[in-house]
Amino acid sequence: MPSPSAPLRLYELALANGRSASPYVWRVRYALAHKGLSAETMPLGFTDIPNTLAGRFKTVPILEHGANVLAESWDIVDYLDRTFPDTPRLFSGPAEFASLRLFDAWFQPEIMRRMVTLYVLDIHNAARAVDQAYFRQSREVRFKGTTLEALTADREARLPAVREALLPLRLQLARFPFLGGHVPTYADYIALGAFQWVASMSTLPLLAKNDELLRAWLERGLDLFGGLGRDPRTKPLFES
Amino acid sequence: MPSPSAPLRLYELALANGRSASPYVWRVRYALAHKGLSAETMPLGFTDIPNTLAGRFKTVPILEHGANVLAESWDIVDYLDRTFPDTPRLFSGPAEFASLRLFDAWFQPEIMRRMVTLYVLDIHNAARAVDQAYFRQSREVRFKGTTLEALTADREARLPAVREALLPLRLQLARFPFLGGHVPTYADYIALGAFQWVASMSTLPLLAKNDELLRAWLERGLDLFGGLGRDPRTKPLFES
Repeated sequence: MPSPSAPLRLYELALANGRSASPYVWRVRYALAHKGLSAETMPLGFTDIPNTLAGRFKTVPILEHGANVLAESWDIVDYLDRTFPDTPRLFSGPAEFASLRLFDAWFQPEIMRRMVTLYVLDIHNAARAVDQAYFRQSREVRFKGTTLEALTADREARLPAVREALLPLRLQLARFPFLGGHVPTYADYIALGAFQWVASMSTLPLLAKNDELLRAWLERGLDLFGGLGRDPRTKPLFES
Repeated sequence: MPSPSAPLRLYELALANGRSASPYVWRVRYALAHKGLSAETMPLGFTDIPNTLAGRFKTVPILEHGANVLAESWDIVDYLDRTFPDTPRLFSGPAEFASLRLFDAWFQPEIMRRMVTLYVLDIHNAARAVDQAYFRQSREVRFKGTTLEALTADREARLPAVREALLPLRLQLARFPFLGGHVPTYADYIALGAFQWVASMSTLPLLAKNDELLRAWLERGLDLFGGLGRDPRTKPLFES
């Protein structure tokens, strides 16, 4: 077990403009900020990952803490709460932890997977030039040979269904200022992470102009931790 | 504030066979059992509700506790935790409470609403004879004049999409024995309540034969609290 005072290092995913672009990295960034922890940032392009840490991991985020290396965002945030118990807790206990995994079990397949099919070509185009061929090849294999262009050709027609699928967030935000209730919790960081990812490269605004509940929540979320989520390089999330 | 020792009375919804048929009543039944509280049960048919408690409430569950009367399941369970703090807590704190409302903000519109469109005619047919005309008329108004028969005519074709929509439950149950984690929480009672409701009147098994994760969880759930959820009158939830 490394000393809690050992330095933290977070391996992130970087686009051509240097902006961090993984929804899961954003979750960890918010988690670190919530706990008042700082980490050294190691930006990697898609093709750097196999050449980092002896190729042990296929994805970011990767968190190094002394001799401990973790590479799955749920493992990382659980580790942070266990290793730094004297900083603000991310999870009040195992029941909240499990209930947020249940939220994520909806959010990942129903929301984030739809986001991928809207934005996979935008991610490609925003990636570092050296990463683009690898990104295209690996994603086209994942989508059974369909090109990124074909995958996204009808995306405007699919936008209404994606907006409708976000209804559970709006129902919650009609009751509470944050998804986690009266104060932001990891539920908010999960969703903010996905919107940050979209905002890092989107050329098609995800949200309708009049989506006031999500707009007000996003403003509150971007303000957190001294404006951690605000960046002049972000693309608009709302139709103008 | 009534004394915690004042008797509790729960108004339920009863079908012709006496079985309780509201998913929200089932949530409260499980919540009471979780806290080790017992309540007098007052079964009502659909048409009894306007003639009960001076017609103050349009739906059940209704919980009476001395002079306090509550009629929304989230209000009821929050009240139970606040009023009986010395019994096992339903919610570890406000963060878990809010995170389970977030789960419900997905579960109600995406799962329970689909269940209604599969089973609304079965509910009608299982209702007490004296309730059937009212039930049909009120639901057909809600569905803009479509008959219950027309609403459910293509239900077998819609079954695969409903089964697929349950994916988030399976993802969670691949990780934990209960939706709430290692022990059952109100997340489980929300979902068990909906399955109990379906099992009270379904003539079309909701779940595929090989849905082992949901099957094993339902078995564990029905065993809770001395088999509270087990009833020989229930209809099969699984295709045989």
